[in-house]
Amino acid sequence: MSQSQSERFTIASECEAEIEDIGGGLKRQMLGYNQELMAVKIWFSEGAIGYNHAHRHSQVTYVVEGEFHFNIDGVTKIMKAGDSCMIPPYADHGATCLTGGILIDTFSPPREDFLEEGALEKPNDKFIDKSSGQVFNKDNC
Amino acid sequence: MSQSQSERFTIASECEAEIEDIGGGLKRQMLGYNQELMAVKIWFSEGAIGYNHAHRHSQVTYVVEGEFHFNIDGVTKIMKAGDSCMIPPYADHGATCLTGGILIDTFSPPREDFLEEGALEKPNDKFIDKSSGQVFNKDNC
Repeated sequence: MSQSQSERFTIASECEAEIEDIGGGLKRQMLGYNQELMAVKIWFSEGAIGYNHAHRHSQVTYVVEGEFHFNIDGVTKIMKAGDSCMIPPYADHGATCLTGGILIDTFSPPREDFLEEGALEKPNDKFIDKSSGQVFNKDNC
Repeated sequence: MSQSQSERFTIASECEAEIEDIGGGLKRQMLGYNQELMAVKIWFSEGAIGYNHAHRHSQVTYVVEGEFHFNIDGVTKIMKAGDSCMIPPYADHGATCLTGGILIDTFSPPREDFLEEGALEKPNDKFIDKSSGQVFNKDNC
């Protein structure tokens, strides 16, 4: 795996993409990331709560399964499969899932706290070859 | 709607979030966006093709339904519900969906070509109040 982005494909039948138990009835799997984007899948068991919090990252969340009571900046809505929401930077948000369910959470910038230390190098340390899309360390140029 | 980001919630039962026919057996719905992140849902009819292309935006794609022959930089994999892939900037990519299916495509920066002209103001024209998360035009300061 490149130090600064995930593998190209995360195929369930080819590899055991790690599903991490993050406690409180929640599990998380990394879908993909690089220096500017990240997507993760979150499983909520019945009654699990994503407690209210806020962060600098922009977030869009999509409901794959289940019914969530989702709040953003004090406004609560019931979200079901196919629904989505946009969470601006620093907006307070949280969710309760009475039914059990699955969310796709996407972030920009990526959540460094979801990765091992050093997995993301700072964009300033790299440049992208526009013809190939390859990412290089400045030190190697 | 704010000029520079989508509504907070896109709830199917509350509003008819527009599903746009973009031709060739493909339909697209905006899930959420702001100046640094965008997520869209794409419906592929049976046999529909997302022709190979490349763009500056980082992309993570998640398969909600169906079976896709998905290629990135000349490598083709079969992706099914629950699989995902990470497409770096400028990587050539495309997909064929023999079964019909649904993808969630996420981008950073947002795809301005998916929005009406002027829907996104340039980040340089704005700043974010870190305490409230509110976005301001510099002109209003």
